[in-house]
Amino acid sequence: MIEKGRLIVVSGPSGAGKSTVVFKAINGRDKMCFSTSVTSRKPRPGEVDGREYFFIDAARFEQMVQNDELLEHAVYVGNYYGTPRKFVEDKLSAGESVFLDIEVQGARQVKEKMPDAIMIFLIPPSLGELKKRLESRGTETEETIKGRLARAREEYAEADFYDYIVVNDDIDTAANELLSILTAEKCRFAARRQMLQE
Amino acid sequence: MIEKGRLIVVSGPSGAGKSTVVFKAINGRDKMCFSTSVTSRKPRPGEVDGREYFFIDAARFEQMVQNDELLEHAVYVGNYYGTPRKFVEDKLSAGESVFLDIEVQGARQVKEKMPDAIMIFLIPPSLGELKKRLESRGTETEETIKGRLARAREEYAEADFYDYIVVNDDIDTAANELLSILTAEKCRFAARRQMLQE
Repeated sequence: MIEKGRLIVVSGPSGAGKSTVVFKAINGRDKMCFSTSVTSRKPRPGEVDGREYFFIDAARFEQMVQNDELLEHAVYVGNYYGTPRKFVEDKLSAGESVFLDIEVQGARQVKEKMPDAIMIFLIPPSLGELKKRLESRGTETEETIKGRLARAREEYAEADFYDYIVVNDDIDTAANELLSILTAEKCRFAARRQMLQE
Repeated sequence: MIEKGRLIVVSGPSGAGKSTVVFKAINGRDKMCFSTSVTSRKPRPGEVDGREYFFIDAARFEQMVQNDELLEHAVYVGNYYGTPRKFVEDKLSAGESVFLDIEVQGARQVKEKMPDAIMIFLIPPSLGELKKRLESRGTETEETIKGRLARAREEYAEADFYDYIVVNDDIDTAANELLSILTAEKCRFAARRQMLQE
């Protein structure tokens, strides 16, 4: 019998480095993957369809919502984002742990639908540092950055349903904390109870 | 301000390898130590007073209980075992995480007195394997081994208040799981909540 994988939800302000930290954590490791979301937003330079996201149009997205093909979905800065349910369930059944990079609204939906999901809130060392990181991307207007910082403050206030907080000051440390959390959760009494009944 | 250390209680059947795994985990690491218990049992060959245990007589032990100098205490196979409260509290205040190797009765007392303690139940891959390990020690009579196996079964039945189960099949894996649990617990939302309020 294959041990089922775990679902790990990673949220946090845009610019905190969620993707970077998760990719660092899963790089070269078996049975771990990053979920690929669907979105109606336009690809950024360098983004590849099916890698960063499945890029679809708003009409197709709305159809997926109606067909219950999404584990969660949200609107963010005018675009749809969602997690394809079948993608996640197939991976978990095959024993892979799946990382989801989604924001707070979506995370709450996942927690309701999959109460065993491990909820991690990933933050930058400070909001000042976050501003710097967003500016250095060079792809965001000043107004967008302001919006993202305001949204970050809202997210901090709504984050109390997460299980863990990881601070991305150093990428290796943050990636190691993600992996430690996954390892620890697999050792949870409830997850291993049957081992006491040989 | 020094971040306080964490108290990690490790219990499990005698012969499961608790000391070996904990020593492996803390070896060469800063801010981690093994608590030294007091006991009224006779030292085994090779054991040094103040290293494996503080070896004292039963009368002095009873005095410590009366003076509330122990965080927990228990009788096991006719001998007293206890954890000196001041030793632990001094280490935690100095920012060191302290591992306690105690059995189920004592662990329950610690959990009541220090609800933040991280409770880990460490088991061998099977009770058959445990029997082999105890026999290979060469220091235990057949009757003692029988008693320890019977006690192990009792402990398994009482273990439901532990937070984690670690299986000592491979020492490195088990030690890594201990460290991952400690890292994860430090990332707990409740432990880091203040980081959201810059």
